Amino acid sequence: MARFIHNQHYKIFVSIYVSSLPGKALRPPWWAPKVHVQSRQGSSGVPRMPRTTLALDHSVPFLQTVARTWHQEFQVHKDNMAKRVAIVGAGATGLASIKCCLEEGLKPTCFERSDDLGGLWRFTEHVEEGRASLYKSVVSNSCKEMSCYPDFPFPEDYPNYVPNSQFLDYLKMYANRFNLLECIQFKTKVCSVRKRPDFTATGQWEVVTLCEGKQESAIFDAVMVCTGFLTNPNLPLDSFPGINNFKGQYFHSREYKHPDIFRDKSVLVIGMGNSGTDIAVEASHLAKKVFLSTTGGAWVISRVFDSGYPWDMVFMTRFQNTFRNSLPTPIVNWLIAKRMNSWFNHANYGLIPEDRVQLREPVLNDELPGRIITGKVLIKPRVKEVKENSVVFSNTPKEEPIDIIVFATGYTFAFPFLDETVVKVEDGQASLYKYIFPAHLPKPTLAVIGLIKPLGSLLPTGDTQARWAVRVLKGVIKLPPSSIMIEEVNERKKNKPSGFGLCYCKALETDYITYIDELLTAINAKPNLFSLLLTDPRLALAIFFGPCTPYQFRLTGPGKWEGARNAIMTQWDRTFKATKTRIVQESPSLFASLLKVFSFLALLVAIFLIFL
Amino acid sequence: MARFIHNQHYKIFVSIYVSSLPGKALRPPWWAPKVHVQSRQGSSGVPRMPRTTLALDHSVPFLQTVARTWHQEFQVHKDNMAKRVAIVGAGATGLASIKCCLEEGLKPTCFERSDDLGGLWRFTEHVEEGRASLYKSVVSNSCKEMSCYPDFPFPEDYPNYVPNSQFLDYLKMYANRFNLLECIQFKTKVCSVRKRPDFTATGQWEVVTLCEGKQESAIFDAVMVCTGFLTNPNLPLDSFPGINNFKGQYFHSREYKHPDIFRDKSVLVIGMGNSGTDIAVEASHLAKKVFLSTTGGAWVISRVFDSGYPWDMVFMTRFQNTFRNSLPTPIVNWLIAKRMNSWFNHANYGLIPEDRVQLREPVLNDELPGRIITGKVLIKPRVKEVKENSVVFSNTPKEEPIDIIVFATGYTFAFPFLDETVVKVEDGQASLYKYIFPAHLPKPTLAVIGLIKPLGSLLPTGDTQARWAVRVLKGVIKLPPSSIMIEEVNERKKNKPSGFGLCYCKALETDYITYIDELLTAINAKPNLFSLLLTDPRLALAIFFGPCTPYQFRLTGPGKWEGARNAIMTQWDRTFKATKTRIVQESPSLFASLLKVFSFLALLVAIFLIFL
Repeated sequence: MARFIHNQHYKIFVSIYVSSLPGKALRPPWWAPKVHVQSRQGSSGVPRMPRTTLALDHSVPFLQTVARTWHQEFQVHKDNMAKRVAIVGAGATGLASIKCCLEEGLKPTCFERSDDLGGLWRFTEHVEEGRASLYKSVVSNSCKEMSCYPDFPFPEDYPNYVPNSQFLDYLKMYANRFNLLECIQFKTKVCSVRKRPDFTATGQWEVVTLCEGKQESAIFDAVMVCTGFLTNPNLPLDSFPGINNFKGQYFHSREYKHPDIFRDKSVLVIGMGNSGTDIAVEASHLAKKVFLSTTGGAWVISRVFDSGYPWDMVFMTRFQNTFRNSLPTPIVNWLIAKRMNSWFNHANYGLIPEDRVQLREPVLNDELPGRIITGKVLIKPRVKEVKENSVVFSNTPKEEPIDIIVFATGYTFAFPFLDETVVKVEDGQASLYKYIFPAHLPKPTLAVIGLIKPLGSLLPTGDTQARWAVRVLKGVIKLPPSSIMIEEVNERKKNKPSGFGLCYCKALETDYITYIDELLTAINAKPNLFSLLLTDPRLALAIFFGPCTPYQFRLTGPGKWEGARNAIMTQWDRTFKATKTRIVQESPSLFASLLKVFSFLALLVAIFLIFL
Repeated sequence: MARFIHNQHYKIFVSIYVSSLPGKALRPPWWAPKVHVQSRQGSSGVPRMPRTTLALDHSVPFLQTVARTWHQEFQVHKDNMAKRVAIVGAGATGLASIKCCLEEGLKPTCFERSDDLGGLWRFTEHVEEGRASLYKSVVSNSCKEMSCYPDFPFPEDYPNYVPNSQFLDYLKMYANRFNLLECIQFKTKVCSVRKRPDFTATGQWEVVTLCEGKQESAIFDAVMVCTGFLTNPNLPLDSFPGINNFKGQYFHSREYKHPDIFRDKSVLVIGMGNSGTDIAVEASHLAKKVFLSTTGGAWVISRVFDSGYPWDMVFMTRFQNTFRNSLPTPIVNWLIAKRMNSWFNHANYGLIPEDRVQLREPVLNDELPGRIITGKVLIKPRVKEVKENSVVFSNTPKEEPIDIIVFATGYTFAFPFLDETVVKVEDGQASLYKYIFPAHLPKPTLAVIGLIKPLGSLLPTGDTQARWAVRVLKGVIKLPPSSIMIEEVNERKKNKPSGFGLCYCKALETDYITYIDELLTAINAKPNLFSLLLTDPRLALAIFFGPCTPYQFRLTGPGKWEGARNAIMTQWDRTFKATKTRIVQESPSLFASLLKVFSFLALLVAIFLIFL
């Protein structure tokens, strides 16, 4: 019995308890039969404290313990049962946040500025203020098995890398499957999120919204900010002397929708992120000439990786991550460079990164080297000067005639509805503990979800962030004291390399698996590989050596998904299903068979010789 | 002196002699000082026999030998000096043929049906009858260092794989450089090429042409047919049951010019050659859905090969060719499959060739796997049935809605201006000795140039064919008796695998280096690697281990190019120049240096242990 009130058991117990919805009978543990909880909705919509009946037909010390535990339970329950959560934005992470709130019995209200869900994944012909803007041809950079919500795989006939329109369909399927739509208020802009006067006691927020000209205000116990980081274009015109005299057209990549505008023009794309590279490659099919200017260079990898497997399914395994993180950074970088250069030598293609110590997020593009080798895209260094109808690059005084300049110079982020005292953005960083909670707030009732660039997919990252954050908002998980959180944040800002593993140079970039595992550990949802190895070795091996697919994150812990194991074991089937659309009966090659026999014999001889 | 009249020396001597143009002083060998040749143009434009002055101040036996040799020379010279050659077509091989004729002192007249040179490389918005038709985006499949004329490298700022418009510019530069234009009669269609009544004695041809409505006839001593094999579309509609009921649009790939027609349509491309694959990939940028149907499958390789080097510069080396041809075919095929699958596993992408014994020409495409993995192109097996608005494939009864069908089903070739008794085309093959001379003609005065599909570039192949053919037309080289030639041709038609090296399944396909070496040997122009290894080892190694660039073919022999050695030694510089347009100073990595030192030490230890 002593162990029963032990912290760990208590937590597990709480999780069983809280995940049940009010008004339904709780499935009691064996030692608490007939325990029953009822809840009545208050007239204001705020649930009242639930009533409980306990059948006391056990020994007194036992029931005392049970009662004490239930009492503690109800403290938590009372605190959380009624919690109203405002969610800002109904994009991919906004949807995950709604679902996580519902899972934990919170009451989410999601405010979406536009008239539909999907956030950046919803393509429109015109740029909308305050919403990320896609070009028509965007395809996900992370494959379908790696970028789905952890408990909702993509349909198996989806291609491995999902075009934006299908991605949006998927998000809609997800919202329908988990009844998220009824929590979303569309066409509602969040004007301000302000601490209530009694914030230090209640942690509550006043959220002012504007819907079709009508301003409203409501009190929320917590706020989840899911607005992303791709809404405010970064247009550093000051770094381009002469740009004001340029007589051609120039615009930020955010404005780009279709390649037709480039037909027969001389185009310069500045910046070699994913957008810049995509735009340059697309332009090159129509334009007269395309220059892609990059100061820092980048590693470019193809979705079609080693032997054609999706790059992230090969690159993102727990095995490789452990291997990388146990080696000193110079060796890791050397290995990475070797690997990146195996597709094409980046120096020969003018793309070699200038800084090879700190790893920048690699650029995903399947076509760039093919376009360079056919002369359709010309890589250029920094722009030195812009003239009326031409541009001079830093490596040669020759003027290149240019008609259109596209600034693919990325984004900054901001929270216009938040006071600077809540979240302050400096140097592209916000002081967020674990990229989520403002470190200095006295009450952890505001979480920023999806403000991170892991070298992996944002959907499972956002989902895991939301799962953890919701546990914090509920009070089930306590954050460390403010001072410790601030220290952690400052350490991250300094970005002091540990000397091992990969080293990221940019704000918001982080190691995918390591980060997610941290969050999973905090909610007791990280799969225990050692115990799995004993109970389910096939699964353990698939988890460690196979791709780190999101299903792993919902294998156990709160929000556990029953289908997770099966999804892991069939992930390669779904991957091949999409491309293996013509099947040829393989006739076993005599030579290959002979080779196998020979290799086996050689191995036997080798073993024999070793033990001789 | 005895060695002097030896065959080999005699041949070399002839080559020095013949490569000089009439009217210019010959640079005499050391043993024949003051030897001088003059030539006067006859009034009819046919050169007269040249006059010769010999300074006889050497010993009598020596000069007798010299004189005898000169006498033999002049016999050959007299026979050929006046030979008029009709060349049909001013495409890439037509131009090479003109140049080879001029080099050998023949008098070429080239008839070009259209109003400009360039043949298939000249893009026009409309298909022209009797001329190969390009789509706008065609880029050469063979890189600039591998596909130039052997004595005329591409400009060094050209991209490695040359877009068609630049390729045409290059052909024009070539024509200008060697004054070929004055030998071309544009807008002149060759109506018929008929043996003259005295053909068995003279070998002459009567060529009837039509120029702007005016028919003309002329007698030629020889004819070179350079019309290629991409003019007659192969449209096997009978193999597609229901095609007549199809209500959408269908056409042969020859009609295809721009991808705009595919916008928002469901497209089916039938046939997976280079055109079919290119068209499917291009369509996929605009179309709603693209299917690529292939019965046999194919190996697909990218221009961007191992570490980004141009595929043919890596694949086409004498070393690799020797290696491949010394291994049994099953092993070679296994190695090739391994290599081809290293980019992407062809089985997983639905592309695996059905027949893996006989190698089909691989498909060159940089984008296909990227388009398959993003679901933009769907690979399908054979079409079972065409319905009104849809198509059924052989693997599933599901109907796929289709708006446009493109038949990328290749070409057949024919020579409408030639009588069947001259060249007969059967099963896609013509009975041509060494792919050039009709085997049964009593006089070898008609040569077909460029009717071959080597796994390499057609320009150097055509140039070498023309060089050899012109020597035959001149009578310097004698062909074997008809019976032996017919036997060789029949052997080739049977296509009995030798059991070693690559095995090609299709008519006209052959091993590039082996074939060219055969021709070079016949004109004594094959570089002798063993003697080079002693006199110029760097060059010998570059020739054997480096890419088999065309410059090697003009390193020696008739038509030798003085710049060949330098072109070979600088071929990689020109290759990198085109893509290395942004250069970053490489800081020597400490780790890489340490690794090198360590590897060296390990090597030393290994050697020490071996000799212990």
